[in-house]
Amino acid sequence: MNKDGTISPATQLCAVIGNPVAHSLSPALHNAAFNELGLDFVYVAFRVENAKMALEGMRALNNFRGMSVTIPHKIEIMNYVDEIAEVDRSIGSINTVINENGRLIGLGTDGPGALKALTDAGVKLDGKNILMLGAGGAARAIAFTLARKTKLGKLLLLDVNESMLQGLMADLNAGTAACIESDLLTDSSLAQAMGNADVIINCTPIGMHPNEGASLVPAELFRDGQVVFDIVYTPLETKLLSEARSRGLKVVSGVEMFINQAVLQFERFTGAEAPVEVMRQVVMERLGL
Amino acid sequence: MNKDGTISPATQLCAVIGNPVAHSLSPALHNAAFNELGLDFVYVAFRVENAKMALEGMRALNNFRGMSVTIPHKIEIMNYVDEIAEVDRSIGSINTVINENGRLIGLGTDGPGALKALTDAGVKLDGKNILMLGAGGAARAIAFTLARKTKLGKLLLLDVNESMLQGLMADLNAGTAACIESDLLTDSSLAQAMGNADVIINCTPIGMHPNEGASLVPAELFRDGQVVFDIVYTPLETKLLSEARSRGLKVVSGVEMFINQAVLQFERFTGAEAPVEVMRQVVMERLGL
Repeated sequence: MNKDGTISPATQLCAVIGNPVAHSLSPALHNAAFNELGLDFVYVAFRVENAKMALEGMRALNNFRGMSVTIPHKIEIMNYVDEIAEVDRSIGSINTVINENGRLIGLGTDGPGALKALTDAGVKLDGKNILMLGAGGAARAIAFTLARKTKLGKLLLLDVNESMLQGLMADLNAGTAACIESDLLTDSSLAQAMGNADVIINCTPIGMHPNEGASLVPAELFRDGQVVFDIVYTPLETKLLSEARSRGLKVVSGVEMFINQAVLQFERFTGAEAPVEVMRQVVMERLGL
Repeated sequence: MNKDGTISPATQLCAVIGNPVAHSLSPALHNAAFNELGLDFVYVAFRVENAKMALEGMRALNNFRGMSVTIPHKIEIMNYVDEIAEVDRSIGSINTVINENGRLIGLGTDGPGALKALTDAGVKLDGKNILMLGAGGAARAIAFTLARKTKLGKLLLLDVNESMLQGLMADLNAGTAACIESDLLTDSSLAQAMGNADVIINCTPIGMHPNEGASLVPAELFRDGQVVFDIVYTPLETKLLSEARSRGLKVVSGVEMFINQAVLQFERFTGAEAPVEVMRQVVMERLGL
């Protein structure tokens, strides 16, 4: 919407595509930010089955400026854009498409959003040992971003799926200069890893609503000075974070990653600096906090 | 937008596509009507070069509900929809696409909008002789609608382009049961036609801004009791209408056709009865009236 709250022929459209999208927070989040800055944009949600046709449509609809992409299209959509940064190709998924006059630029903001969440929380990563739990899509995005954008000490990946673990380790070794290790996730490998980790990042859905009672990490494994980051944000404080905080550790909620991935999308959509506090407030309200 | 003025994942998108669209009144018109009724819809404008891709995108974007189609896409777009009424096929252009869960229905509201403008103004068409000036796209839409939806006496077409005239007459004879005549537009054919016409409809751009000083019909040809309808609406009262009104004749401005074609689109988009006065007010304001 433009400054007088109306929509004009110049209004630019942004949208999230996915399936389902009925519970997406993104329209509320981005529209609040557009309104805060008086930008002539509007953001809607489209349930999409055929991602290829949706992208062709975006290319043809001149002021369909930006797209957030969610499940199940984050991988397939890479085939339909015109340009993708090398790091996003390595990650193997994107969550954002920008329409530059019919040329579609794909990019991912999940990894950068996670990094921003950590650095905004004052977490120093240089020289630190990172323990990453999980080797799925979110783990890939965060691992590649940390490995390329920080001078981390060592990145240890633990997962129960051997082939995903080996695949991610091989890709990280091919695409980054970081020191990467991986191991099957077991009680003993986890206990050993926790003994050496400075920063623990849960990239699995363990602990997510409606399974709030679960945590991958037994509380007795925490050590002083560790930082714990959980990508899960429903609940806002998972059992993992709650136990870490009780132990006096610094914790970072997945909601900060969620907000920051949207902040980075917003800035690519608009070229303007995002009103982060307005966006955080919308997310917190919508999550009932 | 929904009732609290925000956009949700359920918000349905409507849009005008064309090239150019920068001066389209449609976003202001439809958004005012959505807001008036508290409907969870938003309407934007897309400049489009590739109409086929735009339609594929609409099909894929689940709640991209409705489209207004303007120059230069009103003919080509017929190739990309799944269903078109026979009358619209005969007319040869459409201005509206409705997305019924991925099935695209094309239709025209220009002819029905013109008919509604006339009937709303109290003009009786049954048994009347209609003189139509022009045989282009708007003339086709109006002629087919009047010929099929009213019991008009005789429809006489005048145009300077012999082949367009013959084409429209042949199509009307094939597609309607009405009594159709046509003649080349000359001073003498016009004078004769004016002597027999009950309702005169100007479907040419003669008299449109910036050529406000022009009118196809010399004022001395008007006769008592005639009705004059001009599809041109910039200016709101063309020289043709101004002279007819001075002569005491009933006149109908093209702005009523413009409003009513939008009203009919709105009702197809939403299933709700359009707030016609709100829509008229927006158009009048935007035209500086």
